[in-house]
Amino acid sequence: MGIFNRHSSKSAGLEPGALVHIGERKTERTRITVIDFDQTNYEEREVQVAAECSTYAGKPTITWVNVDGLHDVDTIAKVGACFGAHHLVLEDIVDTNQRPKLDYEREKYLFIVLKMLQYDEAEDDVLVEQVSLLLSHNSVVSFQEQKLEGDVFDPLRKRLRIQEGRLRRAGADYLAYSLMDAVVDGYFAVLEHLGERVETLEEDLVQNVSPNTLHRLHSLKRQLLVLRKAIWPLREVISALQRGDSPLIAPETMIYLRDLHDHVIQVIDTLETLRDMASGMLDIYLSSVSNRLNEVMKVLTIIATIFIPLTFIVGIYGMNFQHMPELPWKWGYAMVWAVMLAVTITMLTYFRRRRWL
Amino acid sequence: MGIFNRHSSKSAGLEPGALVHIGERKTERTRITVIDFDQTNYEEREVQVAAECSTYAGKPTITWVNVDGLHDVDTIAKVGACFGAHHLVLEDIVDTNQRPKLDYEREKYLFIVLKMLQYDEAEDDVLVEQVSLLLSHNSVVSFQEQKLEGDVFDPLRKRLRIQEGRLRRAGADYLAYSLMDAVVDGYFAVLEHLGERVETLEEDLVQNVSPNTLHRLHSLKRQLLVLRKAIWPLREVISALQRGDSPLIAPETMIYLRDLHDHVIQVIDTLETLRDMASGMLDIYLSSVSNRLNEVMKVLTIIATIFIPLTFIVGIYGMNFQHMPELPWKWGYAMVWAVMLAVTITMLTYFRRRRWL
Amino acid sequence: MGIFNRHSSKSAGLEPGALVHIGERKTERTRITVIDFDQTNYEEREVQVAAECSTYAGKPTITWVNVDGLHDVDTIAKVGACFGAHHLVLEDIVDTNQRPKLDYEREKYLFIVLKMLQYDEAEDDVLVEQVSLLLSHNSVVSFQEQKLEGDVFDPLRKRLRIQEGRLRRAGADYLAYSLMDAVVDGYFAVLEHLGERVETLEEDLVQNVSPNTLHRLHSLKRQLLVLRKAIWPLREVISALQRGDSPLIAPETMIYLRDLHDHVIQVIDTLETLRDMASGMLDIYLSSVSNRLNEVMKVLTIIATIFIPLTFIVGIYGMNFQHMPELPWKWGYAMVWAVMLAVTITMLTYFRRRRWL
Amino acid sequence: MGIFNRHSSKSAGLEPGALVHIGERKTERTRITVIDFDQTNYEEREVQVAAECSTYAGKPTITWVNVDGLHDVDTIAKVGACFGAHHLVLEDIVDTNQRPKLDYEREKYLFIVLKMLQYDEAEDDVLVEQVSLLLSHNSVVSFQEQKLEGDVFDPLRKRLRIQEGRLRRAGADYLAYSLMDAVVDGYFAVLEHLGERVETLEEDLVQNVSPNTLHRLHSLKRQLLVLRKAIWPLREVISALQRGDSPLIAPETMIYLRDLHDHVIQVIDTLETLRDMASGMLDIYLSSVSNRLNEVMKVLTIIATIFIPLTFIVGIYGMNFQHMPELPWKWGYAMVWAVMLAVTITMLTYFRRRRWL
Amino acid sequence: MGIFNRHSSKSAGLEPGALVHIGERKTERTRITVIDFDQTNYEEREVQVAAECSTYAGKPTITWVNVDGLHDVDTIAKVGACFGAHHLVLEDIVDTNQRPKLDYEREKYLFIVLKMLQYDEAEDDVLVEQVSLLLSHNSVVSFQEQKLEGDVFDPLRKRLRIQEGRLRRAGADYLAYSLMDAVVDGYFAVLEHLGERVETLEEDLVQNVSPNTLHRLHSLKRQLLVLRKAIWPLREVISALQRGDSPLIAPETMIYLRDLHDHVIQVIDTLETLRDMASGMLDIYLSSVSNRLNEVMKVLTIIATIFIPLTFIVGIYGMNFQHMPELPWKWGYAMVWAVMLAVTITMLTYFRRRRWL
Repeated sequence: MGIFNRHSSKSAGLEPGALVHIGERKTERTRITVIDFDQTNYEEREVQVAAECSTYAGKPTITWVNVDGLHDVDTIAKVGACFGAHHLVLEDIVDTNQRPKLDYEREKYLFIVLKMLQYDEAEDDVLVEQVSLLLSHNSVVSFQEQKLEGDVFDPLRKRLRIQEGRLRRAGADYLAYSLMDAVVDGYFAVLEHLGERVETLEEDLVQNVSPNTLHRLHSLKRQLLVLRKAIWPLREVISALQRGDSPLIAPETMIYLRDLHDHVIQVIDTLETLRDMASGMLDIYLSSVSNRLNEVMKVLTIIATIFIPLTFIVGIYGMNFQHMPELPWKWGYAMVWAVMLAVTITMLTYFRRRRWL
Repeated sequence: MGIFNRHSSKSAGLEPGALVHIGERKTERTRITVIDFDQTNYEEREVQVAAECSTYAGKPTITWVNVDGLHDVDTIAKVGACFGAHHLVLEDIVDTNQRPKLDYEREKYLFIVLKMLQYDEAEDDVLVEQVSLLLSHNSVVSFQEQKLEGDVFDPLRKRLRIQEGRLRRAGADYLAYSLMDAVVDGYFAVLEHLGERVETLEEDLVQNVSPNTLHRLHSLKRQLLVLRKAIWPLREVISALQRGDSPLIAPETMIYLRDLHDHVIQVIDTLETLRDMASGMLDIYLSSVSNRLNEVMKVLTIIATIFIPLTFIVGIYGMNFQHMPELPWKWGYAMVWAVMLAVTITMLTYFRRRRWL
Repeated sequence: MGIFNRHSSKSAGLEPGALVHIGERKTERTRITVIDFDQTNYEEREVQVAAECSTYAGKPTITWVNVDGLHDVDTIAKVGACFGAHHLVLEDIVDTNQRPKLDYEREKYLFIVLKMLQYDEAEDDVLVEQVSLLLSHNSVVSFQEQKLEGDVFDPLRKRLRIQEGRLRRAGADYLAYSLMDAVVDGYFAVLEHLGERVETLEEDLVQNVSPNTLHRLHSLKRQLLVLRKAIWPLREVISALQRGDSPLIAPETMIYLRDLHDHVIQVIDTLETLRDMASGMLDIYLSSVSNRLNEVMKVLTIIATIFIPLTFIVGIYGMNFQHMPELPWKWGYAMVWAVMLAVTITMLTYFRRRRWL
Repeated sequence: MGIFNRHSSKSAGLEPGALVHIGERKTERTRITVIDFDQTNYEEREVQVAAECSTYAGKPTITWVNVDGLHDVDTIAKVGACFGAHHLVLEDIVDTNQRPKLDYEREKYLFIVLKMLQYDEAEDDVLVEQVSLLLSHNSVVSFQEQKLEGDVFDPLRKRLRIQEGRLRRAGADYLAYSLMDAVVDGYFAVLEHLGERVETLEEDLVQNVSPNTLHRLHSLKRQLLVLRKAIWPLREVISALQRGDSPLIAPETMIYLRDLHDHVIQVIDTLETLRDMASGMLDIYLSSVSNRLNEVMKVLTIIATIFIPLTFIVGIYGMNFQHMPELPWKWGYAMVWAVMLAVTITMLTYFRRRRWL
Repeated sequence: MGIFNRHSSKSAGLEPGALVHIGERKTERTRITVIDFDQTNYEEREVQVAAECSTYAGKPTITWVNVDGLHDVDTIAKVGACFGAHHLVLEDIVDTNQRPKLDYEREKYLFIVLKMLQYDEAEDDVLVEQVSLLLSHNSVVSFQEQKLEGDVFDPLRKRLRIQEGRLRRAGADYLAYSLMDAVVDGYFAVLEHLGERVETLEEDLVQNVSPNTLHRLHSLKRQLLVLRKAIWPLREVISALQRGDSPLIAPETMIYLRDLHDHVIQVIDTLETLRDMASGMLDIYLSSVSNRLNEVMKVLTIIATIFIPLTFIVGIYGMNFQHMPELPWKWGYAMVWAVMLAVTITMLTYFRRRRWL
């Protein structure tokens, strides 16, 4: 989950609008599937040649074209062309460093970029994949990098196939909404994992702090940073969709967009709470480290301040002066022990009064 | 008081609007009570079958339906249906992770989600419960999780029964306002408890700091975080109610909403002050820990810097060289004591000058 | 100067608008004084029965009713009734936890809550008292808790009595403005005291840091927090007064309100500067503590690293082996001293190079 | 450069608008100079009696009246009266705690308060002086405290005298702009000095940190705070000048105000950058202190952990037991040295592995 | 990469609009190249005399004048004069401390200042160069300091020469956009370098912290600060270009400006993420230092607390009392060893229980 993909600058100097795939190549070949439906008919097939899409572009049925894999810029360009996408839109589709955004050519299409998230439990990392949607009058084209396991859109396909649900009755705008909703639903799962990590970390902070705790905390904070970058701008995108009186979005769909907006706000809210908690934990960590240092120092001080004077005392009577009056005394040795005991007791009392023991 | 309920993502992949209860199951069975009144009549009873509600939906009297327990989604759906609630509204009612929000279907109903708070003195924790209100022309439906002890709406019921008060004369909008007001009044009690904890903590910081103090401070900060999440959005909700010229809210009720708005601002203000104080306390804590370390180090340093040289001196005359001129001296031993005394006094003077003693 | 008064929640559950005095009882009995004047006449007297106020309500002269003490809610209610105050306004008057606010019933009255501040030099604390103003067509009613020493409105009374000043010629709105101006002028005195404390603290930080410094700093920050809570909302209140085209405020008074607004901004500005300075001081404090620790550690290290090796050396020749070639040497003892001197010089050179000495 | 002048509250309780000079008295006597000019004529003289100003007030030529020294409130009042200034404006002129502000009486005058800054190299401090401008139809009155060395308006006077420049052709608004521009130009010089101090401090942080560094950093931060207070509000003032369609400002002057606005933004930008850098430096300082402590501790630890065990070993053979088998050994002494050498090498290896050496 | 160029104040006191070059002199002589083209013709040449520009000013073809080097203010003034630039615009061109800004004279020209960035790998520093664009009806004049290696506009020249691209067909506004786009593309490269440095630093923080790490982190933060200053205001500039309905910008160009705006937002987003990461790293650094101190202290404490008591014990039997019962014991010496072994084991057990080992 890097901050940006290498060579994000490789298009520098090219003509604005030159198509360059920026990002990791995640799949072998670009796969195009078309689902064409209305309330009574349903057709689903894989298309070999990008240009075939154009046969669907003019039909009155709702068409959903899904493109997996973005490295084959020619194919992307051809698919885009079928649906009238501007060259700059195509450039955005293949640049996986895009932040969530909304673009449009009035009366023609709406173009939405958003980020799909998945929690990789093996690596304890969050995977990010860019999804672009191109909504025209009666079609939706979705572009995925196909980096994540499992296709988050599969449940939607199932609902399209078997159900006599709203998805089959409503227009392309509702389909686009459903795709966005599926992506946003995925955020909750990711946040839940991160929430669990936050709680595990908090318990560790109370019980057994180690330098490792710090690095886990740091990696958590970094992931929250990346999530933030991926999710925050989406709020604006959906607000803009609601405000903008695009003729491509039916009034009936508005209530769903409002619901989606609420979900995004809820996600952001939780994200910010997690960030606040993570910040608080760093303070706790530093305090714990300070406390430990204090404790270590106390042990050292107690030992040293008791034994250093005692060692001095025994050192005195280790001197070899010929005239030391105490040495021949019968009870000299016992007396030294008595003095040392007194010193020790005094010290311990002092420590106890200072609450160091 | 977790950040979110487990399985908040369990609805992911379902059709938007599918009814899934998200949250802890807090009560055995869903209980529906209906209070139907106007200025002269008053009827209060428990309803067994959700569909019975519909008999009240058309009456000219004011009807207050209260539903306790949200796990039984079918019942919720039926009650909602009686009052014309959209499917997405029902979904919000049973998802206890909602943040406070306002939704509406113009001319039909206003839908308000808010958070009820209660201080659990046994656990020193803040309990959060979601309350949803559905205000239609002459009815209010309230949905509670019924997790908290005591029903915060009981005083309202009493006022409805015995008093010839404003509540019986005014419309459903005033009833809805009274319910919200009851919830917001509960916030003050919670803040007062937290304020007391802040003050106890402050005294502890001055008198006896312990690692435990840190964890209490941390838990306090976390509770303030949760409160913030529960209360902040309510301000927007009430502002929207005031701005929005819904026909469901009578102009006479506006002044009450303004008062409610002031109360929420006051709550937020106090909350932010508590947060600021809690932040300040962390600094104090860290400083106290530093001060203690300093003190410990000073004791160690004083002991060590006095006795280490002395031990060295006695070590010298413990050497077994055959030719040590001082050893046979008559006053050698006394001289060593004199030297040691001089060293000690020098050191103590030095420490005093440095204000370490 | 607590964050809120105890039992701020005691009204929870009551009908909204129920009159409950929230706050400390600061005076024995509620005292009502009436000043009634126009350009030629002046009458000042204490009223025994609250209802007497109504005789002034209808007169063409300007009437200023001042109420000291808020615990007697009945009297407050009666005075309020004379001037047509809404029940919610009365509730705000007796709740001393109000934040500064503006409320109004168009054409009838403006209701303003603000906070009077006084620096208690004996306790080094800031006292806060709530003042409410009810401005109607030709009367002003002011409500005070009467907790502070001296009445901040006395100079105003004097100006009303003796001067042929603007106050006697202008309307009730100018009187209300003058009352607010007197309150805001009091803020400058409080800030000046706090500014002096900030400067004293800064000097102490440079010269003699002690744990006590930290607590003084903490108490200062807390007082600034309380001030902030009392003063910030006032800006909004006065802005709203300026914006709102209330018929109760004459256009000639506007320039005075703008001046008052500037004063409040100036107060806020200074307050924020003091807050910034106080924050900066905490950093200085922590740094000073660190520096002291460093210094202590250096002394310890210098002493220990010089004497520990020396003690080791003398320890060697304290061993009782029968075959130790150095012991019988004539210059053995001198040689040991030479070695020890060499060690000491080496160490001191090392410390000097490291700038520890 | 205090946060506010003593006795800033001395006007409390007076009638709003009472003239009291607040601030240090910086000059012996109030000096009034008048420059009266149009494209062909130029007159410059010092006026003894304030009332003389009125002779210029009605003339068609452009008049610039400059008043140095603010303590003589009567003179100020008379000068103000000539140009129709409101009493509140006069009050602002003599209160040197004003923040930059814009006030106006439509069609009559614009009143601008701003802060002149000068870097005092001897004291390494920033001096602040308040300048007020009163722009009427064809006159500008400027009020200075005359605290700074050199008059920042002298170059303007020269340009007025010798040049056939724009200043002589344009109106009073352009003159007022030029005065403000001269003040803002002075900010760059101050920021440059502070920028140099920031850089010197940064070098010191890398090379030789001392407690003194901290106090220099603190004083720098405080000066930046004062600058901020003096400069930030000016942005608003100039924006308001641009927005407000005052008839006193000719459309041709607008482009100059836009340029001035850009300069102020640039100043603020640099100021904020310096503040960010100063904040960053505190972190560096604290880290440096920590690093030094670490280093000190390492030296102590290395010395102690090597010699304490050795001292123990030699202590063993200093015991006086009659039966110690090693003592009579021939190679006992050599053996002890061997053991000690081994211990030392082990320790050093350990330290090297931990990268302490 | 200083915060500002020396002598940024050297224009203080001059007439507003006086032309003074502020900044480093980066090139020997000012070089002016002119490219004049339309869809069919293309002319590119270097102009010796600034006044020659005027021959192009009136032509219907698109003219791009590029000026390298800003120190020769006369030449700049002449070039500016050809295209009708206001004196204040010229002043901005030669002042390299400008922040990105947009200025305009309606119907005549748009004036844009922006900052070109380049990463200097040798010095690990970011170089900043000011670029000003003056867009009139059918010409663009660009001014560069010519400090950076390589000309970022070269690819544009190539596209102009060889391609039958959009650049030749579109107007001067598209050319200006392309120049800005080239500059913004350069930002990505710089951010990528900084991103790599962030990652290298993060690895170092985990593996081998050194005081040097701190200084690298500090220098990184400072560079991010400078970038911020250079890039943030550009967003406003482009927004203003989009909003402002200048007749100089064709509606077809708007979509490109929107794309450019998105790129700038993306740059800012990444920049802020890097800043957040750098802040986080300081915390990690401080924690690492604390951890190391802790570790050092533990080693010292373990060694000291084991050996100090042992040294005391052997000290006892080094005393020379004549009556010490243990000394003549046969197993005395062995017994002492036993006691010492017991003490050591006790200590080690204690340390293990505290997890110090």
